[in-house]
Amino acid sequence: MREGFVGNRITALYGIVNGTCNYILTRMKLEGAGFAAMLADAQKLGYAETPPDLDIDGHDAAHKTGILASLAHGFWVNPKKIYMEGIRHINALDIKFAGELGYTIKLLGIVKPVGDSRLTIDASNKSSARQSKIINHKCRVQVSVYPTLIPNSHVLASVNYAFNAVFVRGDVVGDSLFYGRGAGKDATASAVLSDLADAALDLKFGTKHRLPPFVPHECSGAVAPIGEVVSQYFVRLNVTDKPGVLARIATIFGESKIGISSVIQPEGHEGESVPLIFMLHYATNGAALKALAKIARLPAIKGKPVMLRVESFE
Amino acid sequence: MREGFVGNRITALYGIVNGTCNYILTRMKLEGAGFAAMLADAQKLGYAETPPDLDIDGHDAAHKTGILASLAHGFWVNPKKIYMEGIRHINALDIKFAGELGYTIKLLGIVKPVGDSRLTIDASNKSSARQSKIINHKCRVQVSVYPTLIPNSHVLASVNYAFNAVFVRGDVVGDSLFYGRGAGKDATASAVLSDLADAALDLKFGTKHRLPPFVPHECSGAVAPIGEVVSQYFVRLNVTDKPGVLARIATIFGESKIGISSVIQPEGHEGESVPLIFMLHYATNGAALKALAKIARLPAIKGKPVMLRVESFE
Repeated sequence: MREGFVGNRITALYGIVNGTCNYILTRMKLEGAGFAAMLADAQKLGYAETPPDLDIDGHDAAHKTGILASLAHGFWVNPKKIYMEGIRHINALDIKFAGELGYTIKLLGIVKPVGDSRLTIDASNKSSARQSKIINHKCRVQVSVYPTLIPNSHVLASVNYAFNAVFVRGDVVGDSLFYGRGAGKDATASAVLSDLADAALDLKFGTKHRLPPFVPHECSGAVAPIGEVVSQYFVRLNVTDKPGVLARIATIFGESKIGISSVIQPEGHEGESVPLIFMLHYATNGAALKALAKIARLPAIKGKPVMLRVESFE
Repeated sequence: MREGFVGNRITALYGIVNGTCNYILTRMKLEGAGFAAMLADAQKLGYAETPPDLDIDGHDAAHKTGILASLAHGFWVNPKKIYMEGIRHINALDIKFAGELGYTIKLLGIVKPVGDSRLTIDASNKSSARQSKIINHKCRVQVSVYPTLIPNSHVLASVNYAFNAVFVRGDVVGDSLFYGRGAGKDATASAVLSDLADAALDLKFGTKHRLPPFVPHECSGAVAPIGEVVSQYFVRLNVTDKPGVLARIATIFGESKIGISSVIQPEGHEGESVPLIFMLHYATNGAALKALAKIARLPAIKGKPVMLRVESFE
């Protein structure tokens, strides 16, 4: 990003940056397996440490996403400001219903300027690329890590097992992807070797300052609080199957001005507890969480609602 | 490759490096369209020049593949030694039958040491990675460009339209992919800008020689003649449908010690001209071409046989 993207503003960056989580999510998807069994396997293979919290709860991914955000936007990102959710709460049902809707769940590091709707630009389009000049001094940047539903057709959905990838959108170059092994000692050794060689060349040629650690950009600012970040959502509820429940939930979303794009309501017997899945249109995280808190208090809702964000890469 | 892969030997490199050809092949596949119509569209969109020969016949891809080979193996590659086939002869039937067999046709630049069967190593396996030491002074390198059948499940099969990608296998780091837009003036401008910035930094810091243009490797040698290169093959013949034809063709492959892995023989009426497709096991290009020349002389064969190579990335 400091060399090949020098003529670009980074309008979005998405990274699968933790090999352990990606290994577990890939096997859960391909085998319909549960989280605990796959974590145990990852530990056996040396992909996950014991205790696995640093990987599983998103800390490692947040560290890497913070570094990527600094490179992309030229300011130091305070790790405490990075919103972070791990993959411990993802279960086989979420992966199954996401799959039925055409999505794959990945733990995604996301770095994206927010606060201006025009920032949702089509980087492949020349005239709209020019519009990205609106990234200005006052803009803030989303820097976050959470399990995300991504369309199966997107290249990141095919990044499987211990592989990692960083997808970078530049306002001139368009979409780029950098892909490689993200866990295992050989791949790590290779990366360390190349950093050592780079440092040795800097010492030999006295070129420590040839590339700045990061260049201040127009968007050198602050990390946007997650409540302000706009996203689409996948919501899985556990409800008692009786008439009127769907209407009450839909009313709360409506009052919160959150549009519903689809509903999956598997067949059940009246009075039974069944899953109920909503796909929601764009809304701030603040509005979505508030609506969900109201819904959770309905007597027909059993257990804690699951809310995952959906990324369409537009 | 000169920095991030410094601790690695490059055991294989595959590139989709011509945006024009990839655009045409992608649309032919997704729309079942013919070559000429898609070329005309590519010219209209500014992806292909007029005349289009430099792109369509593989010259541009060969130039880029030669540069990649020099970076990977540390010796200057004479462009005249690069075996090159373009995509002019690919037709809708080849794409259709390749699809039925689970393959996508891509114009692929291939750089791979040859001459030792043990070179077909599993880079993800530590102990076999150590075996790659057998890449020695005497080894030669395949440097070629031709339309290639690649499995639909491979990440390169998802590189569509004007996007390009280079897939690099290092003996320590394993498989890596670098993906981005490969045609269009904005993407080109972005690349030129970054080269200019790099040159400016070299001038400012006097660091022109910090990175050698390429490092001589163990495998600094010669380009292997295509006849010695081992591959698998897709062969499409046009035959008069009568008893005994398949047996005669199979006998010629057998005498040439080339195994047949599958045959597609669509239903036809006796005496009619029908396509007949063979998938062949590993053989040198020399042996495969010799067998095909014999087959082409059989009276039941109508027109010129089509032979495309198959890459399984093992």
